[in-house]
Amino acid sequence: MSAAQVGDDVLDHDPTVRRLEEQVAATLGTAAALWVPSGSMGNVIALVLHLDRGDRFLAPRGAHVLDSELGTSAWLAGGMPHPLEWTHGPGRVSAEQVRQLGAAGGPYYALRTRLLCLENTHNLAGGTVTQPDEHALLVSAAKEVGLRVHLDGARLWNASVALGVPPAALAVGVDTVQVCLSKGLGAPVGSVLAGPTALVAEARRVRKMLGGGLRQVGVLAAAGIVALERVADLAADHANARALADGLTELGWDVDRPQTNIVLAHVPDVRVALANLARVGVLATPVGADVRFVTHRDVPTADIGEALRRIGADRVSPDRAARV
Amino acid sequence: MSAAQVGDDVLDHDPTVRRLEEQVAATLGTAAALWVPSGSMGNVIALVLHLDRGDRFLAPRGAHVLDSELGTSAWLAGGMPHPLEWTHGPGRVSAEQVRQLGAAGGPYYALRTRLLCLENTHNLAGGTVTQPDEHALLVSAAKEVGLRVHLDGARLWNASVALGVPPAALAVGVDTVQVCLSKGLGAPVGSVLAGPTALVAEARRVRKMLGGGLRQVGVLAAAGIVALERVADLAADHANARALADGLTELGWDVDRPQTNIVLAHVPDVRVALANLARVGVLATPVGADVRFVTHRDVPTADIGEALRRIGADRVSPDRAARV
Amino acid sequence: MSAAQVGDDVLDHDPTVRRLEEQVAATLGTAAALWVPSGSMGNVIALVLHLDRGDRFLAPRGAHVLDSELGTSAWLAGGMPHPLEWTHGPGRVSAEQVRQLGAAGGPYYALRTRLLCLENTHNLAGGTVTQPDEHALLVSAAKEVGLRVHLDGARLWNASVALGVPPAALAVGVDTVQVCLSKGLGAPVGSVLAGPTALVAEARRVRKMLGGGLRQVGVLAAAGIVALERVADLAADHANARALADGLTELGWDVDRPQTNIVLAHVPDVRVALANLARVGVLATPVGADVRFVTHRDVPTADIGEALRRIGADRVSPDRAARV
Amino acid sequence: MSAAQVGDDVLDHDPTVRRLEEQVAATLGTAAALWVPSGSMGNVIALVLHLDRGDRFLAPRGAHVLDSELGTSAWLAGGMPHPLEWTHGPGRVSAEQVRQLGAAGGPYYALRTRLLCLENTHNLAGGTVTQPDEHALLVSAAKEVGLRVHLDGARLWNASVALGVPPAALAVGVDTVQVCLSKGLGAPVGSVLAGPTALVAEARRVRKMLGGGLRQVGVLAAAGIVALERVADLAADHANARALADGLTELGWDVDRPQTNIVLAHVPDVRVALANLARVGVLATPVGADVRFVTHRDVPTADIGEALRRIGADRVSPDRAARV
Repeated sequence: MSAAQVGDDVLDHDPTVRRLEEQVAATLGTAAALWVPSGSMGNVIALVLHLDRGDRFLAPRGAHVLDSELGTSAWLAGGMPHPLEWTHGPGRVSAEQVRQLGAAGGPYYALRTRLLCLENTHNLAGGTVTQPDEHALLVSAAKEVGLRVHLDGARLWNASVALGVPPAALAVGVDTVQVCLSKGLGAPVGSVLAGPTALVAEARRVRKMLGGGLRQVGVLAAAGIVALERVADLAADHANARALADGLTELGWDVDRPQTNIVLAHVPDVRVALANLARVGVLATPVGADVRFVTHRDVPTADIGEALRRIGADRVSPDRAARV
Repeated sequence: MSAAQVGDDVLDHDPTVRRLEEQVAATLGTAAALWVPSGSMGNVIALVLHLDRGDRFLAPRGAHVLDSELGTSAWLAGGMPHPLEWTHGPGRVSAEQVRQLGAAGGPYYALRTRLLCLENTHNLAGGTVTQPDEHALLVSAAKEVGLRVHLDGARLWNASVALGVPPAALAVGVDTVQVCLSKGLGAPVGSVLAGPTALVAEARRVRKMLGGGLRQVGVLAAAGIVALERVADLAADHANARALADGLTELGWDVDRPQTNIVLAHVPDVRVALANLARVGVLATPVGADVRFVTHRDVPTADIGEALRRIGADRVSPDRAARV
Repeated sequence: MSAAQVGDDVLDHDPTVRRLEEQVAATLGTAAALWVPSGSMGNVIALVLHLDRGDRFLAPRGAHVLDSELGTSAWLAGGMPHPLEWTHGPGRVSAEQVRQLGAAGGPYYALRTRLLCLENTHNLAGGTVTQPDEHALLVSAAKEVGLRVHLDGARLWNASVALGVPPAALAVGVDTVQVCLSKGLGAPVGSVLAGPTALVAEARRVRKMLGGGLRQVGVLAAAGIVALERVADLAADHANARALADGLTELGWDVDRPQTNIVLAHVPDVRVALANLARVGVLATPVGADVRFVTHRDVPTADIGEALRRIGADRVSPDRAARV
Repeated sequence: MSAAQVGDDVLDHDPTVRRLEEQVAATLGTAAALWVPSGSMGNVIALVLHLDRGDRFLAPRGAHVLDSELGTSAWLAGGMPHPLEWTHGPGRVSAEQVRQLGAAGGPYYALRTRLLCLENTHNLAGGTVTQPDEHALLVSAAKEVGLRVHLDGARLWNASVALGVPPAALAVGVDTVQVCLSKGLGAPVGSVLAGPTALVAEARRVRKMLGGGLRQVGVLAAAGIVALERVADLAADHANARALADGLTELGWDVDRPQTNIVLAHVPDVRVALANLARVGVLATPVGADVRFVTHRDVPTADIGEALRRIGADRVSPDRAARV
């Protein structure tokens, strides 16, 4: 970061940022890309660009754009959220839902549906993956009924590594896609919004309006470039997640089989379970009524064993948790 | 209408409008009231006053503020809609739902819930009525968790007549309530938004911003005053609705027992059923997959018999409809 | 009004409204038109359609869209107002201003200018008229630099009568134009927004979102149709305004020569002057530091003489006013 | 930066950010403070918090919030800008203006004025300084007429150093103040919005909604803490600006006497002048029709001499520029 060559990125002059943006665009198969300070900003810019006042957008239940952005989709984009129920497994929706809901509506009475937001991997569903063919069917259904498609790919790298396909294969046909350089990849700050040149130019303007047009941002972009080189390392996180899930299962926990780096455990009382885990030094977060463990580059394999040892020794089981 | 004494209502000088507003406020038990050109405007002004950017609001599934106002709640009020499932009958929700969803949320991650919107009668559920005690429990649950309450009372007069209680008994504890003078009451245009003085003063300002501040509106208010005198006549509409439902049932239709002036018939194919009805001169509208008949002051009792006769003679049954 | 044939205008079925809309479109030379409850709503719908978030719009200083709509241009249309100074007489701006300000701006630093709003006659400037050739130059300058043009023609009928040209000649080249049926024309309520078919269809949707989609609005439209037949009568108002101005001048007042039905008098202290006028039963309103008299169809010629007599008898002069 | 201790700042846990925020709050004399990615975001959050839909805000002509934020004040805050003319020198406005414009307005016709935005130093006026007593008079006038006050202190450090008073003396009485850590201070990215605890808590929420809630932002905050230690160094920039201005004057340029680190030169043709300067390797930017030179920590004193030498040798004078 300290060696980064910088410019003024509001004026589109920062060479390091430009290099990062070109690299991400190439990786995702889009014409252009724009660095943004956060995944939330990438998402909200996309919604602002795709939606008109009052337009409805569809997203799988639990998607970040629905519940985790403080209603900014309504405030900034004037959009009406519509959650799609999971029809065949956690985080998964069907082309038929998209087709039906997208086609409904009329000019003067019903909401006008304009956008499908996908999320791959789906965080709150447990880091679940959408396969390329499933993705293609959803995009194609959306296009059939005149919807645009935005992909929240904050964890797209994890999906790519887990499936062994290039990221671009998971972004085929979308209008915009947002990917994070922080989270698993390890850059301290930053995401990228990618799409066609004209949309990205307008995105640059909206970014400035939201206060996301920074100056010597090359120092952050440099960290992003380093982060991109580490995508393959995510496989280790996935292996760690599987080891954790297997260990917990052996200890009697009710755990979903992890698809990427997130392990969801179903417990009788999530607050009690988290408190017990914290007591032995294992940090996790709640997702609804479940406990969510996340593996990432700062959690070495040895720590997984240690966590399991402590949980086992102390009998921090969901059952016991419930009895506390 | 032509004898109405008029002034400039933007300046709050129109005496006829003022008389109408005072009358409605007294009827609803609020301190103040404001004439608005439409129920939609009354509702959207309420949402604008109650919600801050991104705030979530709750409403029974199918409520007018959710699906029938073109997303204006998001655009103008920055509000995130959250439908409440019907827990014990069409259009009915429980205090427990309000308490749970209203209490959820946190400052930086989760949506902040701010408002409960009720609708009495609930139009798309079939003109269903919320009883005073049920209403009181919902309002009390909302207040417990810090929510404001807006009542969409476009058809509150029908609920009042059907239950034999004064309208004010159905608006107890709400922050704002909107009632329509058109629809069943027969005024050509106009609704009233009622609430505390300070909110209504601010509502007057928002009305002007939306372009709803009209000038010599006394001609319309005069029609509203006449309409108010006819509330008791709604009992005839309800009797007609029951007669229609009974007659349709005898003819083999699957019909909900009407609580007010709306009859919902479940048919195999709503488009076919509507077409068959239209062929014999009976006008109805679709609500989802159902046929919705509405009785009102321009449909005399004799017409109900005639409609049933035509439907019977022509065997316009859902079955036959389905076969066409 | 009571004989009006009505329908449900939200569904675009009210035959009287449709007739009114077609008549106004034909008069203004546009493809389509839409009844709206107020001139403010007509203006704000136009701004919403023409502006994107943050876009700047130009309008002559004192224009209704700048100062008299409570900031709805910012709230609803996200527009940044920019007043144009009067370069050659009250209410008049130059093509050069439009060209310079319209062309300024860049994608990431400067405001993007998108719209020119004209007002003919210009109310607060004293009902001043823009000539057809001047109008054409302004529109042509706007188009040159890529601006859209909206004409606030609340008093376009007055300009048309005063100049002896058809209204369409004063709306040449604009994208949208709003005309009022109330004010001088005498309908109690209502305006019309006219423009190309696609824009008017979208305007219908925005009207519904603002709560301006009414039901049996034919009764109001009928009044509008009558109002349109009275356009020529405005000549009498103009003559009355000239008579009033002449009389006031003789009495020593400093009065602008009226171009239409508005007389502006420059007084030492506007509050004192209005109070003195009110004392002898002459109603006027303040415009900045001036007194504004408006003549209209409910002010017969005889009343002008009577007003002047009272003002003269009581020596309600600006001088005396100042001494009070 | 690389040694910074980091946490998740969205959750308010990052210790380095917290330290920076406390330090800035103490320096500015406010109860709380919030790191934001840019000065623009700090300003827009303040406007969002202070303004309601349609409210007017006052700011000296040329202020950043008026012209340089792409209309975000209208889009996000629903605010109507009103520029204050400079009454007694570049960038300076009077308490009388604030009092008059702030007091004007009424509930249903006129814009409601809600906020005064000050800018110290005023960038586009040439880095001009507002004295503490002048600042106090403006704030006091604003409070008299019920306005809130936001101070855009992107360059407040420069004003503080130039006047020899602590920054808090220049922020007395304001509701919010924004200061930049980049620009003259040299941090690559970041600003701080300071104010009372409740407002800052709400600002944290708005920051998240705009996508400005970042995760491991301690690396940037660390740079900010270093930047704060360098405030006194700004005196060197000011000396350099004076030397540049003196040198240019000797070479025949028409230059304002700099108050801080900005030198404005009045030239016959700004594009020609900038091109000539660029030809000899001197970078400057246009401000209206003027050339703006900025001195900062990466421009050592020696470079000032070199720049003057090149300009002199090449006779890059405004006159010559004009002739090119």
